[in-house]
Amino acid sequence: MEGNGGAGATRWNISRPSKVVDAGCISILAVLRRVYSSVDASGPRPVLTLGTGDPTACASFRPPPEAEDAIVDALRSRKHNGYSPTVGILPARCAIAEYLSQDLPYQLLPNDIYLTAGCWQAIDVMMSILAKPGSNILLPKPGFPLYESWTMFRNLETRHFNLIPDRGWEADLESVEALADENTVAMVIINPGNPCGSVYSHDHLAKIAETARKLGIIIIADEVYYHLAFGNKPFIPMGVFADIVPVITLGSLSKRWLVPGWRLGWIATCDPNGILKEAKVNISIESYINITNDPATFVQGAVPQIIASTKQDYFNKILDLLRNSADLCYGKIKEIRGITCPHKPEGSMFVMVQLDLSCLDGILDDLDFCCRLAKEESVIVLPGSALGMKDWLRITFASDVPTLENALERIKSFCQRHAKLEA
Amino acid sequence: MEGNGGAGATRWNISRPSKVVDAGCISILAVLRRVYSSVDASGPRPVLTLGTGDPTACASFRPPPEAEDAIVDALRSRKHNGYSPTVGILPARCAIAEYLSQDLPYQLLPNDIYLTAGCWQAIDVMMSILAKPGSNILLPKPGFPLYESWTMFRNLETRHFNLIPDRGWEADLESVEALADENTVAMVIINPGNPCGSVYSHDHLAKIAETARKLGIIIIADEVYYHLAFGNKPFIPMGVFADIVPVITLGSLSKRWLVPGWRLGWIATCDPNGILKEAKVNISIESYINITNDPATFVQGAVPQIIASTKQDYFNKILDLLRNSADLCYGKIKEIRGITCPHKPEGSMFVMVQLDLSCLDGILDDLDFCCRLAKEESVIVLPGSALGMKDWLRITFASDVPTLENALERIKSFCQRHAKLEA
Repeated sequence: MEGNGGAGATRWNISRPSKVVDAGCISILAVLRRVYSSVDASGPRPVLTLGTGDPTACASFRPPPEAEDAIVDALRSRKHNGYSPTVGILPARCAIAEYLSQDLPYQLLPNDIYLTAGCWQAIDVMMSILAKPGSNILLPKPGFPLYESWTMFRNLETRHFNLIPDRGWEADLESVEALADENTVAMVIINPGNPCGSVYSHDHLAKIAETARKLGIIIIADEVYYHLAFGNKPFIPMGVFADIVPVITLGSLSKRWLVPGWRLGWIATCDPNGILKEAKVNISIESYINITNDPATFVQGAVPQIIASTKQDYFNKILDLLRNSADLCYGKIKEIRGITCPHKPEGSMFVMVQLDLSCLDGILDDLDFCCRLAKEESVIVLPGSALGMKDWLRITFASDVPTLENALERIKSFCQRHAKLEA
Repeated sequence: MEGNGGAGATRWNISRPSKVVDAGCISILAVLRRVYSSVDASGPRPVLTLGTGDPTACASFRPPPEAEDAIVDALRSRKHNGYSPTVGILPARCAIAEYLSQDLPYQLLPNDIYLTAGCWQAIDVMMSILAKPGSNILLPKPGFPLYESWTMFRNLETRHFNLIPDRGWEADLESVEALADENTVAMVIINPGNPCGSVYSHDHLAKIAETARKLGIIIIADEVYYHLAFGNKPFIPMGVFADIVPVITLGSLSKRWLVPGWRLGWIATCDPNGILKEAKVNISIESYINITNDPATFVQGAVPQIIASTKQDYFNKILDLLRNSADLCYGKIKEIRGITCPHKPEGSMFVMVQLDLSCLDGILDDLDFCCRLAKEESVIVLPGSALGMKDWLRITFASDVPTLENALERIKSFCQRHAKLEA
């Protein structure tokens, strides 16, 4: 038809910004989609995924009914159908300030809290406001690639410091000092650790704080796995050390309440000495948040009731489940020739295991391992290369026991089938 | 204390990106906060706001109970607590494709639909993926300043074409042709019009499409006020003309269902000739959406039921309310010396009125007018300068009748009190 032909003939000016595509491709989800695509759809067995930090499909990892009720109450109140203030509604900011202050030697104020649509948006906000030409940021390796996506997209130079497997994935602070210069604007710490399942000691957190202070850089503390510590070490928030170094804490209801789909996160400025305020960081956050979207208002409205009504028993039950799954996972991995786990997980939902390609026949690398595992065993795990750790795997142990046992059995038989015969 | 003093002594590298602040300051909310700050808190009368496009505080502008029930059902199903696919869950994409296709001469597919956290995020996505060095975009004046915020933040050059008051706020297509060049990537059309309350005719929309096609630029059709047309002209989606020019439609549940706080919007690629796909625009959208946050999963889960269960009676009732309020508003404004309305609103929730400073004593400009009105009468309206229209005002008529009458009475007495005496 005429319009059609004509439109076809027209030369259209449509930009193709490759940077967006590059930034999007390094996301965990993009890599997992690639792994999924290798699954044999005609395979007899169900697909078992140990790929993401989202156990909500398991019957045992359900949010507390009180939290669900709080959402319904907030919705039915009809007080929360409209736009919220861009920083979030005050009662929610108050409740989160109180909640976080319980673990701090000082009191956070509502104005220290900015609600975000999950921790994802908190990362977007911080990477976006810190980016300026010539500046750089220190990120952990392995880490969470969404940081790399945003720094790439915002032209913020990324410099990686290593986490050391044999030291419980502690940060290599010598390399941090070597990497930083006068254009370094912040360092990111993820504790409890994604992807390493690590929980940092008071001593290591203090050393991180002193290092950052010596370098004059602030700390972005990603605590989305807040209090998901089930080992010997207690969880200690980075904000405890905010008297030494300004700390901007990123958090969320997602993991502790098992509701990643509710998209309720926050940015907390832990700034007892007013250093961030003096540098007008708060104004930058408020300005950027003015033009970004907010969490659903009725979810914000439910926050005070969610926090007030959830009992410690619930959190303890989830920690017991995670501890049990982590132990099971760690034990099973020990039996598998071809993958090794340098550090038993103490927190979060993940463990990093290293591939020993020398005893696996014809496996090229971690991505090849994961795609073949998906094809042959219908098991999904994340290639470490998605996290900057070639020939490693990230396995999620936050799953119900039968799934976990079954999946690890399949990984075991996969490794046995591909075992290199001794020379 | 030691840490304190020490931290104070440290020189902190904290970047202060002024661009974020600039981008955030031109937001409607930032300007309204400034106007609000002029309100005399000790004033005897309640504050009446005709400032934002959010009537949800009025008892008469409530979402349909069926929509509320759909959210509760989706939440209680416990199927939607986890992360969603970044493009949105398939049933919601199907439902929105069906919903939009009812008004189109072709069928949208689920893959044409990308769920976003409100139309706000849809604007972020489109401005972000279109931005590349040297490119420019054509925006309407007056328009919605969130576009300017994002283009400023993304270094996408903005060129404004005028909407002509005396022609029912139609786009000045001559100026569009004069503004466009080989680096122009798109033009934005907002219909039904925010802030003008205009509804474009089939004839004008066809002319817009032909102009864009002649220039080889795609159209971003902001239809967040989808079907909120209560005048003589029916609402016609820009997608009807997608055979002439590729159209990317931005929409939301926010306005038609009166739930702006639910944060559920979408991007729809109206691309029957596959021109956007050929230019890999879909890949850019998917990549950017990979790293941005999503609407709450259980809100996505509720979309099919929300769309299926909401009856036409509900939409008709809302249109009657808006028509009635618009008529009332237009009539009242006619009685007020000092402000004039060039065009009776036919859609959306807004009307633009022009200040006649020549008959107002000692009022400097539109911002001064609004701040004094807030101070003396506790009435909030938006200064036109927030929309690039100095010495104009944007008045929201989407309010219940008593509030609207009361507020307009106060504006009338304000103008009378400040009337310039005849020489």
